[in-house]
This record gives sequence, structure tokens and C-alpha cells, in this order.
Amino acid sequence: MKLLVINGVNLGMTGRREKGVYGAQTLDEINEEIRAFCAEKGHTVDFFRSDLEGEVCRAIHGAQGKYDGIALNAGAFTHYSYAIRDAIASVSVPVVEVHMSNVHAREEFRKKSVLTEVCRGEVLGFGKNSYKLALESFWL
Amino acid sequence: MKLLVINGVNLGMTGRREKGVYGAQTLDEINEEIRAFCAEKGHTVDFFRSDLEGEVCRAIHGAQGKYDGIALNAGAFTHYSYAIRDAIASVSVPVVEVHMSNVHAREEFRKKSVLTEVCRGEVLGFGKNSYKLALESFWL
Amino acid sequence: MKLLVINGVNLGMTGRREKGVYGAQTLDEINEEIRAFCAEKGHTVDFFRSDLEGEVCRAIHGAQGKYDGIALNAGAFTHYSYAIRDAIASVSVPVVEVHMSNVHAREEFRKKSVLTEVCRGEVLGFGKNSYKLALESFWL
Amino acid sequence: MKLLVINGVNLGMTGRREKGVYGAQTLDEINEEIRAFCAEKGHTVDFFRSDLEGEVCRAIHGAQGKYDGIALNAGAFTHYSYAIRDAIASVSVPVVEVHMSNVHAREEFRKKSVLTEVCRGEVLGFGKNSYKLALESFWL
Amino acid sequence: MKLLVINGVNLGMTGRREKGVYGAQTLDEINEEIRAFCAEKGHTVDFFRSDLEGEVCRAIHGAQGKYDGIALNAGAFTHYSYAIRDAIASVSVPVVEVHMSNVHAREEFRKKSVLTEVCRGEVLGFGKNSYKLALESFWL
Amino acid sequence: MKLLVINGVNLGMTGRREKGVYGAQTLDEINEEIRAFCAEKGHTVDFFRSDLEGEVCRAIHGAQGKYDGIALNAGAFTHYSYAIRDAIASVSVPVVEVHMSNVHAREEFRKKSVLTEVCRGEVLGFGKNSYKLALESFWL
Amino acid sequence: MKLLVINGVNLGMTGRREKGVYGAQTLDEINEEIRAFCAEKGHTVDFFRSDLEGEVCRAIHGAQGKYDGIALNAGAFTHYSYAIRDAIASVSVPVVEVHMSNVHAREEFRKKSVLTEVCRGEVLGFGKNSYKLALESFWL
Amino acid sequence: MKLLVINGVNLGMTGRREKGVYGAQTLDEINEEIRAFCAEKGHTVDFFRSDLEGEVCRAIHGAQGKYDGIALNAGAFTHYSYAIRDAIASVSVPVVEVHMSNVHAREEFRKKSVLTEVCRGEVLGFGKNSYKLALESFWL
Amino acid sequence: MKLLVINGVNLGMTGRREKGVYGAQTLDEINEEIRAFCAEKGHTVDFFRSDLEGEVCRAIHGAQGKYDGIALNAGAFTHYSYAIRDAIASVSVPVVEVHMSNVHAREEFRKKSVLTEVCRGEVLGFGKNSYKLALESFWL
Amino acid sequence: MKLLVINGVNLGMTGRREKGVYGAQTLDEINEEIRAFCAEKGHTVDFFRSDLEGEVCRAIHGAQGKYDGIALNAGAFTHYSYAIRDAIASVSVPVVEVHMSNVHAREEFRKKSVLTEVCRGEVLGFGKNSYKLALESFWL
Amino acid sequence: MKLLVINGVNLGMTGRREKGVYGAQTLDEINEEIRAFCAEKGHTVDFFRSDLEGEVCRAIHGAQGKYDGIALNAGAFTHYSYAIRDAIASVSVPVVEVHMSNVHAREEFRKKSVLTEVCRGEVLGFGKNSYKLALESFWL
Amino acid sequence: MKLLVINGVNLGMTGRREKGVYGAQTLDEINEEIRAFCAEKGHTVDFFRSDLEGEVCRAIHGAQGKYDGIALNAGAFTHYSYAIRDAIASVSVPVVEVHMSNVHAREEFRKKSVLTEVCRGEVLGFGKNSYKLALESFWL
Repeated sequence: MKLLVINGVNLGMTGRREKGVYGAQTLDEINEEIRAFCAEKGHTVDFFRSDLEGEVCRAIHGAQGKYDGIALNAGAFTHYSYAIRDAIASVSVPVVEVHMSNVHAREEFRKKSVLTEVCRGEVLGFGKNSYKLALESFWL
Repeated sequence: MKLLVINGVNLGMTGRREKGVYGAQTLDEINEEIRAFCAEKGHTVDFFRSDLEGEVCRAIHGAQGKYDGIALNAGAFTHYSYAIRDAIASVSVPVVEVHMSNVHAREEFRKKSVLTEVCRGEVLGFGKNSYKLALESFWL
Repeated sequence: MKLLVINGVNLGMTGRREKGVYGAQTLDEINEEIRAFCAEKGHTVDFFRSDLEGEVCRAIHGAQGKYDGIALNAGAFTHYSYAIRDAIASVSVPVVEVHMSNVHAREEFRKKSVLTEVCRGEVLGFGKNSYKLALESFWL
Repeated sequence: MKLLVINGVNLGMTGRREKGVYGAQTLDEINEEIRAFCAEKGHTVDFFRSDLEGEVCRAIHGAQGKYDGIALNAGAFTHYSYAIRDAIASVSVPVVEVHMSNVHAREEFRKKSVLTEVCRGEVLGFGKNSYKLALESFWL
Repeated sequence: MKLLVINGVNLGMTGRREKGVYGAQTLDEINEEIRAFCAEKGHTVDFFRSDLEGEVCRAIHGAQGKYDGIALNAGAFTHYSYAIRDAIASVSVPVVEVHMSNVHAREEFRKKSVLTEVCRGEVLGFGKNSYKLALESFWL
Repeated sequence: MKLLVINGVNLGMTGRREKGVYGAQTLDEINEEIRAFCAEKGHTVDFFRSDLEGEVCRAIHGAQGKYDGIALNAGAFTHYSYAIRDAIASVSVPVVEVHMSNVHAREEFRKKSVLTEVCRGEVLGFGKNSYKLALESFWL
Repeated sequence: MKLLVINGVNLGMTGRREKGVYGAQTLDEINEEIRAFCAEKGHTVDFFRSDLEGEVCRAIHGAQGKYDGIALNAGAFTHYSYAIRDAIASVSVPVVEVHMSNVHAREEFRKKSVLTEVCRGEVLGFGKNSYKLALESFWL
Repeated sequence: MKLLVINGVNLGMTGRREKGVYGAQTLDEINEEIRAFCAEKGHTVDFFRSDLEGEVCRAIHGAQGKYDGIALNAGAFTHYSYAIRDAIASVSVPVVEVHMSNVHAREEFRKKSVLTEVCRGEVLGFGKNSYKLALESFWL
Repeated sequence: MKLLVINGVNLGMTGRREKGVYGAQTLDEINEEIRAFCAEKGHTVDFFRSDLEGEVCRAIHGAQGKYDGIALNAGAFTHYSYAIRDAIASVSVPVVEVHMSNVHAREEFRKKSVLTEVCRGEVLGFGKNSYKLALESFWL
Repeated sequence: MKLLVINGVNLGMTGRREKGVYGAQTLDEINEEIRAFCAEKGHTVDFFRSDLEGEVCRAIHGAQGKYDGIALNAGAFTHYSYAIRDAIASVSVPVVEVHMSNVHAREEFRKKSVLTEVCRGEVLGFGKNSYKLALESFWL
Repeated sequence: MKLLVINGVNLGMTGRREKGVYGAQTLDEINEEIRAFCAEKGHTVDFFRSDLEGEVCRAIHGAQGKYDGIALNAGAFTHYSYAIRDAIASVSVPVVEVHMSNVHAREEFRKKSVLTEVCRGEVLGFGKNSYKLALESFWL
Repeated sequence: MKLLVINGVNLGMTGRREKGVYGAQTLDEINEEIRAFCAEKGHTVDFFRSDLEGEVCRAIHGAQGKYDGIALNAGAFTHYSYAIRDAIASVSVPVVEVHMSNVHAREEFRKKSVLTEVCRGEVLGFGKNSYKLALESFWL
């Protein structure tokens, strides 16, 4: 399978910001772990990251016909970006929503996702393993 | 008259996504029809499209002094982009809000527009003809 | 095409009330303009007006099988008349919601329409031209 | 017993509108069935129908001292007519609220009735049989 | 001064319904008292009553240029009739909102009036005297 | 027909609690009346009662393939038991919601039922007769 | 009759503040007019004013057994002082709520009064005449 | 690792109810698959199911000191059972919330979970695989 | 006096769970203290505990005619169990609501009790002493 | 122990107002009973009462270092005085909230206390005994 | 310039209460620093403090014609005192709202100020420096 | 000190748009004034402006380790950009929220900032001086 991991706004700060919440590994280190996890099962995975909502939308548009599944951690966009929601709805590639932290155990505004309704499923709360489980859902 | 049509996020997928809602024509094909419709009445029309909210704002800023009217389909930005709202309020070019589908007959969140209040008017529900009617409102 | 324009409560005061909002022409004068606009394209248009919600419902019922489309300005009924909403849903004639003013730029209660969801589309903010554009949507 | 069935707005379209919801019988045919059902038990029943909220109020006023019970299907008035609510409260004839469809399984706005609180009871969801059961409640 | 008293829906039941709330006098008897009260000060007063929202609107339209002030008890229409609200706003005759009972000490829904905002003032809670005080406000 | 009456929490107190609301007959006495009412029409009826939400669910599960209809008075569970709601949705036996009192004329929280949406219909306000009318709906 | 007028917070600024809303007369001048209005009918009136919520409560307590009625303009306390509300409920002297301006036509927060429910009635919108009409309600 | 899967109300109907949502396998068949999935990685898993909220609480209490992790599908209890929430908070065994369907893409009330805040994480939308991924999160 | 203490869901974990909130004594140890406290004043007290909502209801039903008062700590049921609320209302034994912790200083959902309205009073925040004070209220 | 009882607005009317709610004893008589109750256990108690919110705040400030506990019945201030809330938070003397009546069984607004969150606990519903139980909580 | 600093309820506890939030300096010490800061720029500043809402109103009334600007820290009154709001609106002296702490990062109720709308501006979050910056805004 | 001023969406229109609200100076002219104000105190200040939310986030990320403080006027992003909020939380540089106008005295939606909670403080309402006061807060 050919899979895509999309990380949205501020996730480039992973490993440098709020380590209590996100751990001390950088996103690149996490991505390497994810790649290894997939490779072991014979799947390839690409990575895209952007702080711009519109670029996240374009990455989703561009996945059409190229990938078998997307694991999407939209960061704070999760809570208000109907643009990303519509981007997900505009492609037939299945998308799984991912969060490293348990967003329901943090601020009130993080309890609302405008994306889940148009995603296939959601995995949250397991740190970097959230990505792995989300990707595994495609081949299980 | 010199008119401008601005299309926002995901509208580049028109004709390729959710055809039940948006029809099977691509945005370029629709734009050609719109151009012809205006030309017939002696008006010229330019087109701008972007998936980035900030670029939509800049397109509105840039219309000042150059265009007699804007037909704006902001896509999902319609429902939360106070940035675009403020951009509209910052220019004296009249803006007409456009939607191809009847947004009030879809998901709950589509019933709220943060833009209409600062637009001159709104046309929605007539597919590609929504653009034509919105533009015609400037010369009628 | 055979079209019908329905005006609801208080619209008989047009031209006599709040001229800043609705202009100085009476409804009869506006209707004449609309008739001419349609005639020019080869369409005929009839007009009905009532201050009684139930008579507006009956006019909609009666349009079944007689008209190809209805342009409906329900006035203040727009904001609470589920009766008119059900009347629209009970006929197969397509209805377009019309407002002369930009109702979203006025009092809070005018932002909610209970009708749009069952209409084909909506045109608002262009004064008397709102009617013309709504009717044109039927033959465009 | 002398009973009265009151039908409100749009119910004259029964059998002609939304047959999936209301069935294919006209209101007259349904009324005949209801009359037979009552006659069999030795009760007489009269019928009143109007699309005008005020006329429904007057029918309720006029029932005082003349009828032993009213079965009222107020149609869409159910959801906002405090006028009909007050009319019910102004007479001592008991009123039973009736709906043919299961209004709670349709649009959100149909879940709220402003009438039930001042009625004796409510019967909903059984098509034309809702009327029969409501009337039967008076003699059971 | 030439004044008009308008009574809306269900108020014809006054003296016959809920006497605990409205007293035992009929509306005609109350009107005679009001007429005497005004006559004593040299003012004439006319009376209009209807159970139909649209007829209340028309009575307000018709008062333009004929009356110096209106005392309006809209009954239950008070709580939802934006139609009557717009009718008030469409004339320059000042309108005073009147309620016989203290509507704020009854059901929750009676606490909201959609009319007060466009009336000159409001008098409530004094039974039939509410009308007299409302009318006196015009000549005081 | 083979019918089932299910009574939920606290209904075993009927005839002993709040007699002003529920009457002075015990549930057993009421059940006998109901049985007689059904027998007269040639239908048999069984009765189940429990104060435990989970047992109510199981009774509904167990009705599948055994009964032609259920009359369900869930008592206070009506207002929050999504478990019972899901149990109803999990069987193909039609369920009619029943209340002895007019729940809409009591405390605010009783106005909301989480069950009605998945029931065929609802009968409320007629004391013990509510059960009879609900059951009759199956054979009418 | 022996009547009392109580004015609450900021009303000492009347005639000096927001003259567009409250007129140019000082409270003392208004009080003199009110006294004359009452005297003419043979009634005496006392005046109390304070910027302190607790002192307004005490004035109400103290009126018990001394006055036949109170006209109370609580100023901004109207919108949140449950203390004054309870003070009114603690005496048997009837209280009429008074506002000089039409509080419903100003800011949103002024539409809510926590006092009306425990007052006999309310008079608002007639400037200084609001006091006179409120007092007159006691002897009418 | 020693793991526990808890299934709450109505889940015994899996494979027999709403197959479009939950698939055609019974819970026992699904459990066997889960057991095999875990065994392959050298983990043992026990299963508990009940339609009674209190028994689900007791199962959680009893897991303390016996299991390394719990995968909990509380069914409809998810949306209102603060009892189960408190049970989770009363033990130190980590709990992962599981849903077979994408609960956010169904009825509005399913969007709110009162449990997630006290769980370690959540997996939803992958049918029976949701259980496997949730359990895998403990050993990953 | 013969008194009853009822403890609801999860309270069997007291002394083992969240000791910061509930202290380190087990419920049995606390009960012994309470028994001694009552005995000293010559009163006897029985104890009932269950994790099942329905069993709590039955315990309340069964107290009728046997006990002079109930101290009820319903645990998490406090916040949503209208079933327990109705059970309380169905008996004439006075019930006092008890909480060991200050529920208003914890999570938002704990601020709402659906029980207090039908209880005689409430004591909260004093740990095990809350029970003693609640019971003392019966003989004071 | 040295304890303080603070009574807020309108409580000076106790025994003279709403005797159905508050009993027929005056506050002085109640205070004497409370003093005796405390003296019997060897504790002294002082009393402060004011109708002014600011004076209640000052009394709380002044208790710092002088008293071991405060029983506070803030009267209607309970429902909106964030000032008293902050005063409580500004001292280290523990405060127990007291109400004579069951405030949850009266008007809706009395269900909200802005104070409880910063108090140690709350006792309500036992008339004058509420004070005694609250004070006893300090020495129990 | 002649400036006035007004401190409202509980602020006399500064330096003695919640030092983590407000620092360890007393209000008098802070005032001296503020005076020095102003004097250095050639401005004089007076100070007023009260725990009584009504006295804060009077201080604002009294500033009219005497001061060029007011820095107002209303303490908890900020969140509900429409009385102080009206006092500010009743004078032409500009008022700047001041808070020492970042009120938006504390309890939910502190996020709402009823005063800001009628103030010139707001400075918050800088401890005692908030006063200095607010005053400097008058001469910058 | 090394400080950074960040201006968000539409602020490039300053001096050209809505001059009544923002003044007639361009942002460049304002920036020059700010630079001089800081230079006078011996501080240097850099400026960044973008209409793209993601670029504002990046500017905040990049400030880490380079600047001693940020004055941030996010424009309309203030009201919904949880992305910018998270960016602020991801760096240790203190951020002060700035608004030129009194946002609380404009449209309702401007009263809500999603940023303040994670900022050190806020300065609003003083036109260009808001920036100066915000920056001064860093060295005061």
C-alpha cells in the first residue's frame, strides 16, 4: 500500500514545544519510526507538512489517485477548518484523523473536531503511536 | 463594466468532486460560460482562484480601483473567515456572495455565513448560473 | 414560461414605508418593471400579494400545475412561518426566495429564514432587481 | 358524544403532497373513515379545516358549549402558534393534539410543540389512525 | 386627539376565559370604559379587534394619517409576529404596547416580546387600566 | 396479535405514589384492564416491568420474533436512556411510546424524549387508557 | 394615597447625562412635576434616591406599612439585582417598575429585567411621564 | 500482557442488528478474531459484556491489579454514563475508548462522549479492527 | 429515629480510589463512624449500597414506612438519573442529598444535580462528616 | 472555636417576610438559638448582617486571623456577586455556604451559586438548622 | 494632566491575598509607584478605592470636570455591574479599564467584562504596570 | 531589548481602509513612529506582516531565541485562529495582544479572542499607541 501522512500547523515544533504533551522527539525522528513500522509490513509512506491551511487542502487534493490512505493530524485546524473538511470530502482516498495527545482531556475548544464526520475513523491519545495505528487500519 | 470573479478553497475541484452537488463541468469550463455571458452584454470579467485564505484577501485588496464589482464564492471560508469579511469591508468595490448549491439545504454549519453582512447581496442555489446572476446584478 | 411573483406581509407598504431600505417605488410600479423585464424574454408573470400567511399558503398550493416557477418574498413571514415552508414543500413548482434588502445586514432576527431549506435558491440585496434575477434563474 | 376534528394549515394538500409521509388518501376520504369509526360507537363528529391561524382560533372558541372534545392537527402551526395555544386555554373543551407522522423523526423544528402543554394528551405517528385513537380517548 | 385601540388574537374571549387573569368584564364593556375615560379628557378613541395577524397588520397600515396614536394589545402575537413588528415600523403613528396581565409573571415564552423594540413604550399589568394609561401617555 | 407492554423504572409504584398524577389503581389492576381490552378484540398481551435500564433493553431484544408490537412506558428513562433507544433500533418489532400523564405539562426535563425518534408513534396523557390506545394502534 | 418614588443608581445624573435619552430636566425638577401631578389628584408622594443597591433594598423594606404603592426605577440594577427583587417580594406594598426610556430599543442587556416578575406592572418609554402613569395606576 | 475487552449495552445484538453499521459477524465471532490477533503477539485477552451500566462499572473496578489495559466499547452509555466515567477514574488500569462505527458521522447525540476525558486514548470507525488497534496501543 | 444511608455507584471504591478527594477510609469504616455518631444520640441507622441505578430506586421505594429519613449519596447518578429523582418523589420519606467532596469545585458536569429539587436539603463538602450532618438534620 | 455567621441582603426581614419559606422567627431569635447551640459545645459565635454587598465583603476581609470559620448566607447575592466570591478567596478562613430554604426547589435563578466553588462546603434546606449544621462542620 | 485611579472591590486586599496572582506589594505601595511614574512626566494622580459598587459610581460621577482621565480597576464588579457601566457612560471623562492579572487566563466568568464597551481602551496582564500603561495612554 | 511587532491579515490596508476606525497613517508610517519610541528607550524593534495565518505562525516560531517579546495584532485571526494560539503556546517568548480599536465596542464577534488566554497581557483601544504601550510593558 502507498500511504500518506499529513501534519498541519505548528507540528513542525514537535519535540521543541510543550514536551510534556508531545514528547521530546522531533517530527523527523517520529516520521522515521513510522516509515520503519510501515516498511516492516511492506507498505510505503510519504510525509507532508505545512503551516498553511490551503496547502494542507492541496496535499489532500493531490492524494487522489496516488495514495491508498491518509493519516491526517491537522493540528489546531482540526477545530475550525471547514476548508480541510471539504477537501477531505472532495477526494475518494480514505482519511483517518490522528492526534498524538488526548485532545478531549485538554482545553474545551479541542473537544470539537470539524473533520471527524468526513473521515473514516479517528485515533487519538497514543503519542507517535497514534500515527502507526491509524496507518495500520488501512491494511488490517 | 470590469468585473472580477473570486473562487476560494476547494473550488478547483469543481467538476471532479461531489458531482451530485456541483455538476460535472470544471471551473475553467464554467468560467468560459460566464465570460461569454458577460461579453454578450459588453462587460469584461477576470477570474481569480486560490485555496489560501490570505490570497483571497489580497485579491480583494487588489480589486480596489480596478474593478466595478466582485462575485465571490469563498467556499468553506464563507463559514468562519472573518479575515475575508474584513478584507471586503476594507474596499469600496461592491461584493456579491455566490454559492452554487443551496447551502441552507446541506449541513448545519453551512447555514451561517460570516460574509453576507458586509456584502451587497447574495445569490445561491443555481449552480453555475449563480455567478451569472450575481454579475448581472451589477449592470441591471 | 409562466411565472408567479408572491409578496407577503407589509410589502403593500413598499414605496410608502422605510424608503431608505426599500426605495420610493410602489409595489405596483415595481411589478410593472418586472413584467416588462420578463416580457422582453418572452415570459409571462402573474402577481399575488397578501398580508395573511394562510393566503400565501393557498397561493402556493394553487400554483401547482399552473406555473413553472415562483419568486417568493414572504416579508417577515420568512423568519417564522413553518406553514409557508410546508406549503412550498407540498408543491413541485420550484420556488426562489427573494429579499429586496440585504436581510443579513439588518436586525439579528432577519438572519434566520425558515424557508430557504425547501427553496431552490435565494436572491437578496438588490432591491427590485432581486425579483428579476430570481425569475431569470428559471429560464437561464 | 359530539366531537370535532380541526385540521390546520396545508392539510388540505393531504393525499396530494408528500405521499410518502401522509399517504395517498385525500383529507375528505380520511374524514369519511373517521366519521364511520365514530358512528359505529354511536358518536358524531364534525370537521373544520383552514389554512388561517386566526380561523383555527375561532373554531376553537366556537366549540365551547357545543362539543365534548376536539382532535386538533394544527399542521405547522403546532411549532410556533402561541395564538392557538391561548385559544385552547380559553375554552373548557378538552383538546387532543394529533399528528399523522412521527414528527420527532423528521426535521429538528418539528420536535417542539407549543400546544401540548395545554392539551389533554397527544397521539402521533399512526397516519389517519392518529385521529381515530385521539377521538376514542374521549369515550374510552 | 384621535386614538385607536387594537386588540389581537383571543382577546374577544376576555371576560369569558381565564377570569382569574383577565377579569370578568367583556371586551365591549372594557372598551366603553376606555371611551369614557378618553372622552372626559376630550379625546376620541376607535376600536379594532381581529384574530387574524394579517388583519392586525392592515389595521396598523390604515392608521397612518388617521390617528395620533395606537394602543396595541397583540395578545399571543406579541411573542412571535415579526409581521406585526414590521407593520408598526412601516407607519409613523406612535404605538404603545399594552398587556392586561403581568406577562413576565406567567409562562416563560410570554417574557419575550418581538414588538416592544419598535413601539414608543409599554404598559403592562394593570388589567383594563393598562389601556387607559397607554392612551393617556399620548396626551400627557 | 401477540403484544407486549413494557413498564420501566418506578412504575411499580403506580397507585401508591403521586395519585394525583397516576391514579389510584395499581399497575397490576391496570394490566388486567388492558388484558381484557385486548382479549375482547382477540389479541393477547404480555407484561414486563423492571427498575433496571439494562433489563428493559433485554426485554426489547427478546421481543424480536416473538411479538407483533410493544407498548413502552420507560418512565424516567425516557429522558436520557440512549441505551433503550438503541435497543429499540436493534429490533424490527414496532414500538409505541406511552405516557400516562401529559409529560409536556410537567417539569421542563420531561419535555425531551430520547426515544420517540426511533418509535413508530406516541400516545400520552390519557392515564391507563394511553396503553390501550397504543396497543390498538397495532390492529387498527 | 401615600406613594413613594424610588430611583436607583446613576439616576442622579438625569438632566446632566445622555440628554438625548433622558431629557434635560434634572431629577429634582422631574420630581417636582410628579409631586404636582399627584397633588392635583389629592395624593402625596415621597422620593428616595440612592446609588447603593443595599440602600434601595432598605428603602423598600421601610415602605412596608407606610406607603400604598411604590414606583421604582432601579436604573441598571434592573438587569441583575436579585437583591432588589427579593426586597420587593419581602413587602406587601405593590411596586410598579418604571423606565424613562424604551429599554427594549437600546442595548441587548437592557431587555432583561429581573424585577418585573415580582412587580405588579411596568411602565416604560414615556420619559418623566412614565413615573406619573405608574403612580396613577395606584388610584385609577 | 493481560488485557480486557468490555462491551456495554446492546452490543450483544452485534451481527443481528443494523448490519449496515456493525457488520454481520456476531460479537463472539469478533471476540475470537481479537483473541487470535492478541495471541499472535503473545498477549492474552478476556472478554466481558453486560447490558447493565452498574455491571460495567463493577467490571472496571475488578480489573484493578488484574489487567494491564482495558479496551472499552460502552455502547450508548458512552454518551451519558458519568457512572462509568467515575469507575474509569477510580482505577489505575489504562482504558482505551473504542467504537466500531464512526460515531461522529451518525446522530448528533453520538458526538458527545462523557468518557474520553478520563481514558488514555480513543479508536473509532474501523469496525471490529477498532478493538484490535486499541489493544495494540498497549504493547506498541 | 430509624435512618437509612444509601450510597450509589462507585462509592464502594471509597478509600481505594482518588484518596485526595475522598480520604483513605473505606466505606465500611466510615459507616461504622456514622453508626456510632447516631447511636450516641439514640438513633439507629442502616446502610445500603449499589452500583445499579435500579437497585438504588428500589431501596428508596422500600424505605417507605420503614425509615424516618434517608441520607443519599448517589455518586455520579446525581447528575443524570431522573429515575432516582422520580423514586425520591414517589415516597414520603424525606431525603437529604449528600456529597463528600465539594462537587461545585470539580468538573463542570458535577455542578448540576437532578435530585436536589425533590430532596429536603443538601449537605456537601465535609468528607465523611457530610453524612453525619445530613442525618443530624432529621433530629435537630 | 471562634466562629462568625454572616447574613446578607434582605435577611433582616426574616420572620417578617414570606413566612411560608423562612419561618416566623426573627433573625435575632434564630441567632440566639444558634449561639446556644454553639455554646453548648464550647464554641463562641459572632453575628454580622448587612444589606450592602461591599459590607459583606469587608466582614469577610475582617475575619482573617480572627475567626476559625464563617457560615455565610449571602441571600440573593449568592446568585451574582463575584465580589463576595473574590472576598472569600482572599482570606484563608474557611467559609461554608448556608441557605435556609432548598434554593433548588424555587425559581430557576436560585439554582446557580457563584460562591460554592470557593467555599469549603454547603448546607441548605433545613431552615435555621442549616446554620447550626454548617457551624458544626467546623468542629466535627 | 490630572488623572484618577479607581480601585473597586477586594483590591484593598492586594499584597495580602493571592500573592501568586497579585504580587506582594500593598495597594498603597503600588499607588506610590504610580504617583512617582506620573510625576516624572509632570502629571498628578489621585486615588480612590471602595468595596461598594455605588461609591465607585459616585467617584466616576464626581470626576466629571475635575479629571482628564480615569484608570479603573473595578475588580469583580467588572463582570456584572451594569451600574458602573452606566456611570462611565454618564460622564465625558475617558475611562481606561485596567486589570493586574490576565483575566482571560483565569476562571471562565472573568472573560466577560460589561465595562469595556463604554471605555476608551483596556490594559491587562502586567501587574501594577497595567495602571502605569493605562495612565500613560492619556498623555502619549 | 530586541522586540518584534507582528501584524496579521488586512492590516496592510491601514491608512487606506476604514479611516474612522484606524486613522489615516499607513502601517509603514506607524511602524516608524514605534521604532522611534523604542529607540529613545534604547530598544530595537523589528516588524513582520502577513495576510496568511500560517506565515504569522511561522514568524512566531522563528522568534524563539531571537526576541525578548512580541506585540501581536493578529487582525481578524484574533477571533478564530487556534493555529496562532498554539503557535504562541509553542514558544517561550512572551506575547502581548494588541488592537488599535476598542474591539469590544464594535461587532459582537470581535468580543471573543482565542489568543488572550495564552498571551501575557493585552492592550487595546489606543490606536497606534496600543503598540507602544504593549512594547513598553516589556521593559517597564
